Amino acid sequence: MAVYTEVSDDALRAFLALYDLGEVISFKGIAEGVENSNFLLRTAGGQYILTLYEKRVRAEDLPFFVGLMEHLAGRGVTCPQPVGNRAGSAIGELAGRPATIVTFLDGLWIRRPNVRHCGEVGEALARMHLAGADFPLRRPNALSLRGWRSLFEAARARADQVAPYLREESATELGFLETHWPKNLPSGVIHADLFNDNVFFLGEKLSGLIDFYFACNDALAYDLAICLSAWCFEPDNAFNVSKGRAMISAYERVRPLGEAEIAALPTLARGAALRFMLTRLVDWLDVPPGAKVAPKNPLEYRDKLRFHQRVRSAADYGLTR
Amino acid sequence: MAVYTEVSDDALRAFLALYDLGEVISFKGIAEGVENSNFLLRTAGGQYILTLYEKRVRAEDLPFFVGLMEHLAGRGVTCPQPVGNRAGSAIGELAGRPATIVTFLDGLWIRRPNVRHCGEVGEALARMHLAGADFPLRRPNALSLRGWRSLFEAARARADQVAPYLREESATELGFLETHWPKNLPSGVIHADLFNDNVFFLGEKLSGLIDFYFACNDALAYDLAICLSAWCFEPDNAFNVSKGRAMISAYERVRPLGEAEIAALPTLARGAALRFMLTRLVDWLDVPPGAKVAPKNPLEYRDKLRFHQRVRSAADYGLTR
Repeated sequence: MAVYTEVSDDALRAFLALYDLGEVISFKGIAEGVENSNFLLRTAGGQYILTLYEKRVRAEDLPFFVGLMEHLAGRGVTCPQPVGNRAGSAIGELAGRPATIVTFLDGLWIRRPNVRHCGEVGEALARMHLAGADFPLRRPNALSLRGWRSLFEAARARADQVAPYLREESATELGFLETHWPKNLPSGVIHADLFNDNVFFLGEKLSGLIDFYFACNDALAYDLAICLSAWCFEPDNAFNVSKGRAMISAYERVRPLGEAEIAALPTLARGAALRFMLTRLVDWLDVPPGAKVAPKNPLEYRDKLRFHQRVRSAADYGLTR
Repeated sequence: MAVYTEVSDDALRAFLALYDLGEVISFKGIAEGVENSNFLLRTAGGQYILTLYEKRVRAEDLPFFVGLMEHLAGRGVTCPQPVGNRAGSAIGELAGRPATIVTFLDGLWIRRPNVRHCGEVGEALARMHLAGADFPLRRPNALSLRGWRSLFEAARARADQVAPYLREESATELGFLETHWPKNLPSGVIHADLFNDNVFFLGEKLSGLIDFYFACNDALAYDLAICLSAWCFEPDNAFNVSKGRAMISAYERVRPLGEAEIAALPTLARGAALRFMLTRLVDWLDVPPGAKVAPKNPLEYRDKLRFHQRVRSAADYGLTR
């Protein structure tokens, strides 16, 4: 569920009075997204998404996220367009929370991606990396090595409640990554959360990217590593090398990988898998017993991590050269 | 939250292939409603709501609900219009559940209704009662006297966990209603759940009614009694007689109440309050400890019931004659 905050009639009216969007025709909470409260807003002027930023998004990061969407859209990456109010600001406040209105993006997210979808994602990711190259704001990745250590410390005492030896397995992997994490790779703005529910398609054509609220500056190839785990495994957690090949080759048609990036890919993929395993683990341990909202399973990413640990080179992901 | 069932890409495609709605442009779960899973569906042909009926709605009741919406819309009551598939059926199956597509209704539901909203609701309710007069299907009200007894039996053992003496208070009221429940009042199709989230407004003009999934045949004045409790109390559970007067007088401009209905109104209101107190009580006791989805508070309706017990006549609701 994705509506954590109720918006009163008066507050909504006062907020929208700051914009030039025309009369409100419809306003409905959307049951997607897990970080923020999202509402579908229709007005005489068109269709929009109104987002209230809940605790996980820091208000001081919003100029980065909103500026990035504007920047990318101006360079041909289809993504939601922040809508400015009459004062020229795209960030306001509603129901005590930072709030934005962005344009509505057509398309559906794909529940079971196929090889062609994976190719589309690879291409769009590379285009986003190129388009972000001259984005002037910077935001460090809070969920990289140092962040993983904090997550691990938060979960370690109860990790073995989720699976036997999970604490030891996590500690060992974290130690490996702290020693071997690649440095000095080509870096820039990455999406950092380009899962299938953040990519829209019309038929098999990618129609846009959404949810830039983990975007940050980091190694570009790390973003690709995240996508390999998010898109190219089957429901039984077996890696599908056809999907990996489609994704990597489509990425490389737009932005060829350097030798250092290729060499680092298996380590980056291990880091990506550990990152999502740890955030899911912390969420999992945080859920009260009997809750109806099921958190995502951390063990899916433990299994993906184990695959990446056995990979010998980027060829195992489908790289063909 | 209102998405209990995930719909796969293939299942959605196969389902929509039975309709003439054009290409799908968007498909999003809606975080409203508590009984069914609702999705906002945009296609080349327009905007729709796709509903999957979860366990609380019985498949054999769907022809009544769907037929009623068609019937009412044909008589000028603005409500969602069921969309037939190519085979001419408005009821299909998706993800193992009965499913319908209805037209999208513009408007917003009002979080804090004022006197004018209450008048609009009174008028729309009366118009619905007249429009439903010649609807040929019948559905008994499962949540009338006999149903209340079953609900009470389900909750009695633990009722006092919610509030002291709640079991005794409920038993006494149920006994009173079993003796005094009015019979032979003018009856017809009632909405039976016309709460503020089921009525849409554009500005202060009512733009439509939704969610007919409790509709049934019962005393028309009972529907008005439900609305008095649902719309005319303030957040501190004090009855606002200006709202009651606005609602009743607007209702009567379209359909005047008979003497028997006026005399019965306080008893009908007690029954309506007990009905919602009991269903909320059962839901409340059914929630696992620590769940994130808060059920509605049964004590709100206990307090409303206590008000209705003290009412001497319909004049106390604002009836002016």
